[in-house]
Amino acid sequence: MKVIKIGGNIVDNPEKLDRFLADFAALEGDKILVHGGGKIATEISKSLNISTVMIEGRRVTDAETLKVVTMVYAGLINKTIVGKLQTLGCNALGLSGADGRLIVSKRRAAAPVDYGFVGDPIPEKFGVNTAKALIDNGFTLVVAPITLSESGELLNTNADTVAQTLALGMSARGDVDLVYCFEKQGVLMDVNDESSVIPQITPARFEELKAAGIVADGMLPKLENAFRAIAGGVRSVTICSAENLTRPGYGGTTLKS
Amino acid sequence: MKVIKIGGNIVDNPEKLDRFLADFAALEGDKILVHGGGKIATEISKSLNISTVMIEGRRVTDAETLKVVTMVYAGLINKTIVGKLQTLGCNALGLSGADGRLIVSKRRAAAPVDYGFVGDPIPEKFGVNTAKALIDNGFTLVVAPITLSESGELLNTNADTVAQTLALGMSARGDVDLVYCFEKQGVLMDVNDESSVIPQITPARFEELKAAGIVADGMLPKLENAFRAIAGGVRSVTICSAENLTRPGYGGTTLKS
Repeated sequence: MKVIKIGGNIVDNPEKLDRFLADFAALEGDKILVHGGGKIATEISKSLNISTVMIEGRRVTDAETLKVVTMVYAGLINKTIVGKLQTLGCNALGLSGADGRLIVSKRRAAAPVDYGFVGDPIPEKFGVNTAKALIDNGFTLVVAPITLSESGELLNTNADTVAQTLALGMSARGDVDLVYCFEKQGVLMDVNDESSVIPQITPARFEELKAAGIVADGMLPKLENAFRAIAGGVRSVTICSAENLTRPGYGGTTLKS
Repeated sequence: MKVIKIGGNIVDNPEKLDRFLADFAALEGDKILVHGGGKIATEISKSLNISTVMIEGRRVTDAETLKVVTMVYAGLINKTIVGKLQTLGCNALGLSGADGRLIVSKRRAAAPVDYGFVGDPIPEKFGVNTAKALIDNGFTLVVAPITLSESGELLNTNADTVAQTLALGMSARGDVDLVYCFEKQGVLMDVNDESSVIPQITPARFEELKAAGIVADGMLPKLENAFRAIAGGVRSVTICSAENLTRPGYGGTTLKS
């Protein structure tokens, strides 16, 4: 099974989104799509006079912002994608983590930084029965990054982490390949050369790339997370361009144990 | 199985909504909840400077309004209800009509009145396999009144009609009771006396009540619709207060053939 995550800037671009969804619909085998939020939530917050506060690249989610992200992610974006996939012949079913308790999360501690209504998934609470029942009945899940706390609060959750939780949770059932689609081609040897994609990275190679300073900045935590997913049982993690979903190996960087 | 619809003014009132959901969660047997929209969509449209146009009590849904109702109905309201029900021990799964093609609709003709992106469900296209698969796996469906056209457009749809389509569609499988919960006690003999509920109405009694002018105005099309549902195979239709879900006969008016 494949768990595929698309980033917010694909969601924001109708042409890129349509192309991606046509490729996604054509993929064979079981698959799950996780989508990010994009700029729409920020624009709507602005129109509603709710200020957007970002700390270290993460949105601070107060009660009003939680309403906006729930509306935009689980409503507008999720149902728009589901409608398009249905038209492409893919039997999509849109969910948040609250539905069938698919992804239960823990509200992040208020210190050192209070991110508000933000949750981190609890892997042991993954709703495997929900996922299994839906997939076995032929539905293609489209998952919005809103999760449920054990006390019933909706929580804003990082979409990469949601994808990872789904991939780990489904690994108990069989091989899972996790694919992160974004605007770059993959992990690059030279950050200024999009043709310098490193096709494969093992844990040993990762140590070399870190030591040489080739993997750094934002890519470092992304890859560390990916190797954690692999250590937890995910077969592979690929980082690639959303345009390459139909290419062998997705024309990107695949991480394997 | 029971199909229960709650109106927008219950959704708008957190205390009433919580009480209703506790009663709903406690109901035994298979059940589906359909929720209306309420004033939230109108308030958000206003904040976003989208003008709300109503013709004969129905919202005109232009492209921007469609985005708002999709956000509010299928996102905010749907997921808020799902989160609350999950906490009450009810395995809720929130859907729009687009998910699994549960409710496919036809965009209403632009003449004589152009309501914009508004759809009327096509009963023959009801997603019975989707509903059956989800219910048989123990999920309690929570359905938002956004549906899908055959060409893949999301369409704003009357929640009463969505509930009726679900009740008719599920009737092929077994007895279905359809319950409309609203702010009144039921159909009243005297519109100014909430204690004058007519407990039961048959088609013959309906003709008498119409002739006597006791059923008139907004209640008339509601009851005509209800009798159409019964003629189509729904076992009973009850109109009652959202506060009476645990009372025998819901303390309201039940229509039977």
